[in-house]
Amino acid sequence: MTIKKILVLHGPNLNRLGVREPGIYGKLTLAEIDEALIKSGSKLGFSLECFQSNHEGMLIDHIHAADKKYHGILINPAALSHYSYALRDALVSSELPLVEVHLSNIYAREPFRQHSVISAVADGVISGLGLDSYLLGLEALVNIIEKC
Amino acid sequence: MTIKKILVLHGPNLNRLGVREPGIYGKLTLAEIDEALIKSGSKLGFSLECFQSNHEGMLIDHIHAADKKYHGILINPAALSHYSYALRDALVSSELPLVEVHLSNIYAREPFRQHSVISAVADGVISGLGLDSYLLGLEALVNIIEKC
Amino acid sequence: MTIKKILVLHGPNLNRLGVREPGIYGKLTLAEIDEALIKSGSKLGFSLECFQSNHEGMLIDHIHAADKKYHGILINPAALSHYSYALRDALVSSELPLVEVHLSNIYAREPFRQHSVISAVADGVISGLGLDSYLLGLEALVNIIEKC
Amino acid sequence: MTIKKILVLHGPNLNRLGVREPGIYGKLTLAEIDEALIKSGSKLGFSLECFQSNHEGMLIDHIHAADKKYHGILINPAALSHYSYALRDALVSSELPLVEVHLSNIYAREPFRQHSVISAVADGVISGLGLDSYLLGLEALVNIIEKC
Amino acid sequence: MTIKKILVLHGPNLNRLGVREPGIYGKLTLAEIDEALIKSGSKLGFSLECFQSNHEGMLIDHIHAADKKYHGILINPAALSHYSYALRDALVSSELPLVEVHLSNIYAREPFRQHSVISAVADGVISGLGLDSYLLGLEALVNIIEKC
Amino acid sequence: MTIKKILVLHGPNLNRLGVREPGIYGKLTLAEIDEALIKSGSKLGFSLECFQSNHEGMLIDHIHAADKKYHGILINPAALSHYSYALRDALVSSELPLVEVHLSNIYAREPFRQHSVISAVADGVISGLGLDSYLLGLEALVNIIEKC
Amino acid sequence: MTIKKILVLHGPNLNRLGVREPGIYGKLTLAEIDEALIKSGSKLGFSLECFQSNHEGMLIDHIHAADKKYHGILINPAALSHYSYALRDALVSSELPLVEVHLSNIYAREPFRQHSVISAVADGVISGLGLDSYLLGLEALVNIIEKC
Amino acid sequence: MTIKKILVLHGPNLNRLGVREPGIYGKLTLAEIDEALIKSGSKLGFSLECFQSNHEGMLIDHIHAADKKYHGILINPAALSHYSYALRDALVSSELPLVEVHLSNIYAREPFRQHSVISAVADGVISGLGLDSYLLGLEALVNIIEKC
Amino acid sequence: MTIKKILVLHGPNLNRLGVREPGIYGKLTLAEIDEALIKSGSKLGFSLECFQSNHEGMLIDHIHAADKKYHGILINPAALSHYSYALRDALVSSELPLVEVHLSNIYAREPFRQHSVISAVADGVISGLGLDSYLLGLEALVNIIEKC
Amino acid sequence: MTIKKILVLHGPNLNRLGVREPGIYGKLTLAEIDEALIKSGSKLGFSLECFQSNHEGMLIDHIHAADKKYHGILINPAALSHYSYALRDALVSSELPLVEVHLSNIYAREPFRQHSVISAVADGVISGLGLDSYLLGLEALVNIIEKC
Amino acid sequence: MTIKKILVLHGPNLNRLGVREPGIYGKLTLAEIDEALIKSGSKLGFSLECFQSNHEGMLIDHIHAADKKYHGILINPAALSHYSYALRDALVSSELPLVEVHLSNIYAREPFRQHSVISAVADGVISGLGLDSYLLGLEALVNIIEKC
Amino acid sequence: MTIKKILVLHGPNLNRLGVREPGIYGKLTLAEIDEALIKSGSKLGFSLECFQSNHEGMLIDHIHAADKKYHGILINPAALSHYSYALRDALVSSELPLVEVHLSNIYAREPFRQHSVISAVADGVISGLGLDSYLLGLEALVNIIEKC
Repeated sequence: MTIKKILVLHGPNLNRLGVREPGIYGKLTLAEIDEALIKSGSKLGFSLECFQSNHEGMLIDHIHAADKKYHGILINPAALSHYSYALRDALVSSELPLVEVHLSNIYAREPFRQHSVISAVADGVISGLGLDSYLLGLEALVNIIEKC
Repeated sequence: MTIKKILVLHGPNLNRLGVREPGIYGKLTLAEIDEALIKSGSKLGFSLECFQSNHEGMLIDHIHAADKKYHGILINPAALSHYSYALRDALVSSELPLVEVHLSNIYAREPFRQHSVISAVADGVISGLGLDSYLLGLEALVNIIEKC
Repeated sequence: MTIKKILVLHGPNLNRLGVREPGIYGKLTLAEIDEALIKSGSKLGFSLECFQSNHEGMLIDHIHAADKKYHGILINPAALSHYSYALRDALVSSELPLVEVHLSNIYAREPFRQHSVISAVADGVISGLGLDSYLLGLEALVNIIEKC
Repeated sequence: MTIKKILVLHGPNLNRLGVREPGIYGKLTLAEIDEALIKSGSKLGFSLECFQSNHEGMLIDHIHAADKKYHGILINPAALSHYSYALRDALVSSELPLVEVHLSNIYAREPFRQHSVISAVADGVISGLGLDSYLLGLEALVNIIEKC
Repeated sequence: MTIKKILVLHGPNLNRLGVREPGIYGKLTLAEIDEALIKSGSKLGFSLECFQSNHEGMLIDHIHAADKKYHGILINPAALSHYSYALRDALVSSELPLVEVHLSNIYAREPFRQHSVISAVADGVISGLGLDSYLLGLEALVNIIEKC
Repeated sequence: MTIKKILVLHGPNLNRLGVREPGIYGKLTLAEIDEALIKSGSKLGFSLECFQSNHEGMLIDHIHAADKKYHGILINPAALSHYSYALRDALVSSELPLVEVHLSNIYAREPFRQHSVISAVADGVISGLGLDSYLLGLEALVNIIEKC
Repeated sequence: MTIKKILVLHGPNLNRLGVREPGIYGKLTLAEIDEALIKSGSKLGFSLECFQSNHEGMLIDHIHAADKKYHGILINPAALSHYSYALRDALVSSELPLVEVHLSNIYAREPFRQHSVISAVADGVISGLGLDSYLLGLEALVNIIEKC
Repeated sequence: MTIKKILVLHGPNLNRLGVREPGIYGKLTLAEIDEALIKSGSKLGFSLECFQSNHEGMLIDHIHAADKKYHGILINPAALSHYSYALRDALVSSELPLVEVHLSNIYAREPFRQHSVISAVADGVISGLGLDSYLLGLEALVNIIEKC
Repeated sequence: MTIKKILVLHGPNLNRLGVREPGIYGKLTLAEIDEALIKSGSKLGFSLECFQSNHEGMLIDHIHAADKKYHGILINPAALSHYSYALRDALVSSELPLVEVHLSNIYAREPFRQHSVISAVADGVISGLGLDSYLLGLEALVNIIEKC
Repeated sequence: MTIKKILVLHGPNLNRLGVREPGIYGKLTLAEIDEALIKSGSKLGFSLECFQSNHEGMLIDHIHAADKKYHGILINPAALSHYSYALRDALVSSELPLVEVHLSNIYAREPFRQHSVISAVADGVISGLGLDSYLLGLEALVNIIEKC
Repeated sequence: MTIKKILVLHGPNLNRLGVREPGIYGKLTLAEIDEALIKSGSKLGFSLECFQSNHEGMLIDHIHAADKKYHGILINPAALSHYSYALRDALVSSELPLVEVHLSNIYAREPFRQHSVISAVADGVISGLGLDSYLLGLEALVNIIEKC
Repeated sequence: MTIKKILVLHGPNLNRLGVREPGIYGKLTLAEIDEALIKSGSKLGFSLECFQSNHEGMLIDHIHAADKKYHGILINPAALSHYSYALRDALVSSELPLVEVHLSNIYAREPFRQHSVISAVADGVISGLGLDSYLLGLEALVNIIEKC
């Protein structure tokens, strides 16, 4: 039996976690998040590949490659949440289960951050729970994949 | 050592779950959700009290009573999400950790459902994951409470 | 053969009819409206139960109880027309034929009164015809029920 | 004693009823609607003249002629509902009792159909009840005329 | 000569005063406000009845009962200020002199708090003066009643 | 030397002047306005042709014919002011001097009447002066024509 | 085998082409456009009937007659693009393949010209290509018809 | 018999006429406009006093003084048209006949110039006719005064 | 011990009180208001200086001078409420306790009057109570000053 | 004589054609579209270079290189249509003839898809005609180039 | 050779610099700014005249006088930035080079401060750099003047 | 002592300067701007590194690298100003002094160009001064760095 795979995507500036505005995003680094996700995925019987990019185009390229190799996508689109219809179209085109996560509670921040153009095409959205947004998002995604 | 308690609040019409529009909300009844939550809470070492009401005022009364007796609130405000500033004020007044959940993905539905006046005062928001919205919301809430 | 039943719901402040702003709402009392409706329903072979409340929650409770006992709902949501998404969800959940009525012509009044959040989920809407809004609404509802 | 007369006006494209989008507008033809109206009017002691036009100007010309010959107007303005301020002015100028009807529930359709510029100058509005919108509209109009 | 009576209404969450966000609302409890009002009313020759509820419907029920027993209403609608058209209709229907008060300056807070749907039907509005909003509101109401 | 000619256009419902809402539009009939205009034009050495229609299309047809025969257009577009981009395009296409007039002060009426889509393509606009709107508009138009 | 027929409709003021604002619309007359279309249609094995009107109602009458006699409609709605919901309803009612064309690039002109209420019910839209808008629109329409 | 008097008010920057942007405002100086107005007023039997100021407050002071001494006001509020509610209130307070004029056609200029907060309280508005805006405005004002 | 001083500011057109629109603003003159205020201030142990101007700039000049000489400001900004950000900045700059008052209930009047740009920087706002708006505003201001 | 060259640009996700949502975009692959375009271009005497990228930056780089080597650009900006002002600026900077095409009718889809920020700087726009949008767009572009 | 002159204008409340909200505007007084500007201008070979007023009208009067005597204007319009179309018109009328400066970064403050009606008619705008906004603005203005 | 370094970033299409729309952006090339900046920086004792990219992602990558190596950022975000929240987040994350510049006056151009999402996170903004925007921006940035 082959192990199922999940693609974890981190949008622009998330490579700066732990450095950037810890008051809002916490002290965790992206490497620590990935490690926690991989460990948690492993317990659930899933293999994870994590990818961060500051380039909208590279995120889209990765998504296009995903439907052959992965069973689901966990994404934190970061600032691209608020305008990247190209990212949205790529995610729709993948036809994979999709969970969108945000470290901070975007609905409690600046007006432009309160609307994500990605949410309407996600299966579920988790916002404001720090590392838990990722870990619980992974759990939810696994459940969706297993129901398919 | 006393067991910590969590208040689970279900807004208007959620007593109809399993009956009402199963295409959108699934076949689960509210009793089944409460049972799953209590079982899950128990594993996490928490005692849960679940309360549903179609009356905004009774939900507020419950929240007012909560800060003496509970350590956190898990709420699905249902349609009150979209206009009940009174419910919002009550939740703020409780000063308890707060996680807001929605069974369906509200960001993918009618325009009026895409904005929750509660979200800005919640610690985190989970939407679109069916029963998992509640279960993962509980997990997140427990983690927030334990960090306090 | 059992007699079919219809639930007539009157929203907040309609208990004040005949007293409140007769220039806008006429001199008829709610009791007189109910009497006229029951008499008219009886001629059409229908039994009516009429219920008024100033409490959104009690109207919702009544609607929840309705699908077991009634074949259709005739509602004047009054001021709740303009913001009660909870009432809207309750009516959708009932899956019963629904006619919405207003005594005054809401489209000729203050801007906030010109949009009813209930109308989109009603089968038909009648506005501005005083007692006739109710009586013709009942006739319409009976016809919808009999076509089912 | 002279018989009272009512002018029934049908706006653009209503001559296509029965042909056009039966899923939305039903299978009835305009001739059948007129027949039903005339029959119903006759029972109520009223004589009806029915007129359909795709020309805003011809509808206005008819309305101008109406106040000499008729005691009330029953109108389905169709698509003109949403922009014809000229039709609105003509109806105001007639100073006759006015009931506006729509076959489909315009409040449950595309956003541009949810507002009628005619409604603010009508005595009453009936929407969504198919043939009943017309027949009940006639009944209401007759009652208004008889109260004058 | 009978003593004139005034109904004092407090909206949702005001029972939490002194507890809830003292930075915004001050340290005074509702009981202390009521005591100060009653004392001040008594000096002015008026008897006051104070009523707080978290239920929109119960506030409306009280207002309906008011016109028989009271000569004026002093209301702090709290969060209901921003959406309760039902409360507004009830107050209009009472036909009693009406003064609306707010402890905090609502015009200096979140955008949704800057508009009260009640204000347009009040005689006067006082905002931002803490206990003085109530006490001066009472004084103003008494003056309006005595001018009638 | 040939006498210069001016086309006077009256939009929908203006044939009803003197009958329709005299409180707003005055007691003058359209025939009296035309008579006054022709007399005044004659003094200024201009021949006038006056045309009223309730049909947008007929007004456009007239304008198309105008540039061969006339030296300027005086128009009261009535309700067409607020939506007839077709009338606007016809007037632009005529390339004749253009003065727009309104009997009532449209800027002091309903919001929809406060914007005329014609004004941006007129040389001048006169509003609110009753018969004087027409007479002064004619004077202005004559001056524009004579300056060409 | 019968020759297939196409209805070509030109909206208000297009009879003025070649005369009106050549800077925007070019020097071609409508007769030349029709001639080019007929010649091109003939090569594609289609017979064309061309009709221009400044009257919304006459365009609608023509469309109603079209579904019996034609296999597709090519329309330049001109200024009616921006407000004629009646024309839109007529085109929907025809259930014929529909291509909408504009000589100038409407998306590069005044704000009111940038939205066409017709486009949402057309199969395709071509804008800004002068005579080519028509000729390519015809080609596209022929291809749609032949695929049916 | 005393000669009736009219106050002519010119808003900010109109002292620059003839100098400022002659492409938009023409080559006439304000002195020439005043001269033409006084001459024209004199023929009509009226005495005019003309006053220009760049100070909103001084225009208001003049208006306050006007109702004792004048029978009507002719005003070109210039840029104050677009925001000076204080000027508007002063004009309302004068209770004198009021005609508002603009040299250029404000409805054909920048969006902010297309709305005048003064127009709703004027008897009539004339725009776009250069010196004629003033002269015809005077004529209109005289007619209004004489009808009083 | 020195007597504390309060600056009372009246905005444009308030010098016209008693004359201007008594239906809205009452019959009281500004002199009478000032007299009542001074008398009331005197009882409270405060000395008042009252200043009215139709010039935004003079009101600002007065405010600048105020923080040296006064302990608080009571202002009725009149029409400047709705656009004078310069007045707002001056009041903020004074750093004195500030109460804003309006004679009429601005929230029940024209839309442009329902928002005051001053309110967000005032300690409290009183509207709709006629002379009482001033007198109660003074009382409130005195209390704020004494708490400092 | 040198052969003229055209640059064909495909925006993000168009590499997925034939795979992605065939219900909306058809079954054609991008390779098949390019083949059809090259073949059609060849018949018209033009050489085409086709380029797809999911990277906004790479599309811009290509456009910058284009004005040296190409005579026109045919672009389907895909999702970038709706927000990429950088792409728009690049296209303007190229100063080459430009035709924008869309496979689906963007005016009949989600609101955010109904506005293209590219259209205002294109010569022409073709939408909704599937492969024909490209082929007719090429034809139109060739005609524009040849007219230069 | 005559020395070139520059007019420096400071809008309302800037006389309060150093006193007013030092957290936002810094500790510099206006006198110090003027001194720094004059010194800097002198080095650049320019003579400066500095003028502050809280009166819109006086600023306009100064601008009118400027084109005879000055070669450029450096302005900090302060709060007038956000509504004074009269100031804007005065600046346009001067036809002098114009640089607008702000001490604080207006784009990072309250929404009403983020739009300046002056900017569209300035040559350049500098915001957020404290004294440097003025000094660099002067440098820029000098360069513009010298290029003329 | 080490020389301080500044990162100069140029957004999309700025590599086209001197070529692209010289009417708006001038004839200077980007190389000339960089040369002028480096020379000016050198005089101020600063070393500059200049980087242009049409790729949002590459600009972000550069900014991430900047806080280790540079003491400030001077950026012309070009079209990315209007939508790139990812660029904004990167700049915030750098925590370096930031000055934003624009060659043309963006507040005098198309509406979409009048708002920059970057400005709210910059220290200062300079717009409309051509090369001076850069040179003065550098000067300002140097002053900010030296004050740290």
